[in-house]
Amino acid sequence: MTLLPNPANLNCPLPHGDRTTVQLAHGGGGSLMAQLIEQLFLPAFNNEWLNTRQDGAVFAPPGARLALTTDSYVVQPLFFPGGDIGKLAVYGTVNDLAMCGARPCYLSVGFILEEGLPMATLAQVVQSMQAAAQETGVQLVTGDTKVVDRGKGDGIFINTTGIGAIESATVNIAPNQVQPGDAILLSGDLGRHGMAIMAVREGLSFDSPILSDCAPLAAPVQALLQAGITVHCLRDLTRGGLASALVEIAEAAGIQLAIDERQIPVQAEVRGACEFLGLDPLYVANEGRFIAFVPAAEADRAVAILRDQAPGGNAQRIGQVVGAASPALVTLTSQIGVSRVVTRLSGEQLPRIC
Amino acid sequence: MTLLPNPANLNCPLPHGDRTTVQLAHGGGGSLMAQLIEQLFLPAFNNEWLNTRQDGAVFAPPGARLALTTDSYVVQPLFFPGGDIGKLAVYGTVNDLAMCGARPCYLSVGFILEEGLPMATLAQVVQSMQAAAQETGVQLVTGDTKVVDRGKGDGIFINTTGIGAIESATVNIAPNQVQPGDAILLSGDLGRHGMAIMAVREGLSFDSPILSDCAPLAAPVQALLQAGITVHCLRDLTRGGLASALVEIAEAAGIQLAIDERQIPVQAEVRGACEFLGLDPLYVANEGRFIAFVPAAEADRAVAILRDQAPGGNAQRIGQVVGAASPALVTLTSQIGVSRVVTRLSGEQLPRIC
Repeated sequence: MTLLPNPANLNCPLPHGDRTTVQLAHGGGGSLMAQLIEQLFLPAFNNEWLNTRQDGAVFAPPGARLALTTDSYVVQPLFFPGGDIGKLAVYGTVNDLAMCGARPCYLSVGFILEEGLPMATLAQVVQSMQAAAQETGVQLVTGDTKVVDRGKGDGIFINTTGIGAIESATVNIAPNQVQPGDAILLSGDLGRHGMAIMAVREGLSFDSPILSDCAPLAAPVQALLQAGITVHCLRDLTRGGLASALVEIAEAAGIQLAIDERQIPVQAEVRGACEFLGLDPLYVANEGRFIAFVPAAEADRAVAILRDQAPGGNAQRIGQVVGAASPALVTLTSQIGVSRVVTRLSGEQLPRIC
Repeated sequence: MTLLPNPANLNCPLPHGDRTTVQLAHGGGGSLMAQLIEQLFLPAFNNEWLNTRQDGAVFAPPGARLALTTDSYVVQPLFFPGGDIGKLAVYGTVNDLAMCGARPCYLSVGFILEEGLPMATLAQVVQSMQAAAQETGVQLVTGDTKVVDRGKGDGIFINTTGIGAIESATVNIAPNQVQPGDAILLSGDLGRHGMAIMAVREGLSFDSPILSDCAPLAAPVQALLQAGITVHCLRDLTRGGLASALVEIAEAAGIQLAIDERQIPVQAEVRGACEFLGLDPLYVANEGRFIAFVPAAEADRAVAILRDQAPGGNAQRIGQVVGAASPALVTLTSQIGVSRVVTRLSGEQLPRIC
């Protein structure tokens, strides 16, 4: 893939054409920083808040309850099959808001740039963020840029922090809301994001390339809520994958969960790549997949909604909440029908996946 | 100064005592990351939001209007006379909220840690953040930790994003609110933060060491507003210092500003260090100083409030808004009574000051 965008495809001009890389002075509060803001960020993220030139954005509360969430993105490589760090930085935070049952509204953006970063790379990332923001209906209303010395960063790190609105007073989504008997739903097939990144890093190629599942999740969650599904808990399956999400929720709620691996969709290419690299798809990171805990009586209806609305299109009911347990426990019935305990990995299979 | 805190002074235990440095796995979503959260972050920042173990915090809007602001902190060294990156990361974002006329309420925290960072350093920074949060009345309600490979970061980078409440419907603070005739007030003496950092980096020592002016500014701003002062614009004097803040506001508002250097307080040690290094205090970064634009008729009362409430204790009226101007212009009457034009620096005098 190319890191140099065709300038004809950019909606915003590159700042000061004679300077093709980021310099320390771009973070210094002087005229180069002002140029970067005026010529790159403001045209791309154009909105009333940025145009006030204040150090913050002011707005009316978008809902009776708000959700606030933050994530920093340090993924390598910056561009990967199916996405890039800019898209990830918008979707990822939008998705964390969605997991609170919130409609995403406003994002802040903090860039930490490494001296020497090609300005064209930054412009491409900014374009990608703006496209993702438009797609998901969020406004990038305030931002900050720091530049660190060459060798003290890694191209681009991005923090996004999001505010969302929880529209309904009855929404109460958290691990401690999970009930014995709840069905556990998986929104789509596992492992694409992690394996797409891994394939690039390891120089693997497949007959059909694995594309990241990187996608926004607010729409399927809002669809569940608007259909009146009693959503008890949601979690997107990023670092640590499905296994870690299940263990975290089980521990936070003090419960036993049982899932059936035979119900978990994994693309053939992803399964093959995992086998080749000795990885378990249950632990591989996803960037557009989540689990939902809902009452068993509502599970079929919820799965139908997710199949229609969630990225992947292959949502499944994968297990249920057995009941209170101390210590907490997650069990899995394997492909060959054997039951085993699912634990957290000590670290992660793939560093810097997001 | 020492980077290793005395464990006896820590309110929170160091995570997994046999591991004294940050590892990639601490950012990996597995058990080491869970330990870091459970043993370091949760005890330090203990509050109801973090304890829900959700990926976001949910709360009622704290005011009828909200302010949102973000900053990443990449200061080097991490610890400096008068402060550290943790304190700065809380005060800095609190101060940006204050500059919107908002009462700071909630902060998110995003850490980007470099593999190999001493765990004791992280613990010390976390303690410092919590102390600063308590002092300023904000809650650190949600967070994220990423770890990058050795040599791809620089110890600790911190993003904080803040939400504040604008209590009064009449508060409208922005460059475009500035009026001809407005007095320009400076909250205290200039240049301490930048010179404190520079002294450490350059190995300079003075008879009395220069301490950073790093301090929270929400209280003096709220004091102005509560006293009924008609605040038109506020700006804290961080990167680029007083000069850059004035130029930014003049340009955003399309006005001419005139200031008198003889009214600008600068500590003798700071002035001496600036002369020694060939720096102009007007461009040196501060982390606890701001300017306020208020109607001339309210200036004396506002200065009195700032002398009482603002860090430094030596607020001054330093100039006025001459009127609309195109192009915008900032003029300064120098110490010897000569008038000159104040411009932005192209870069900055001191990289990575915050």
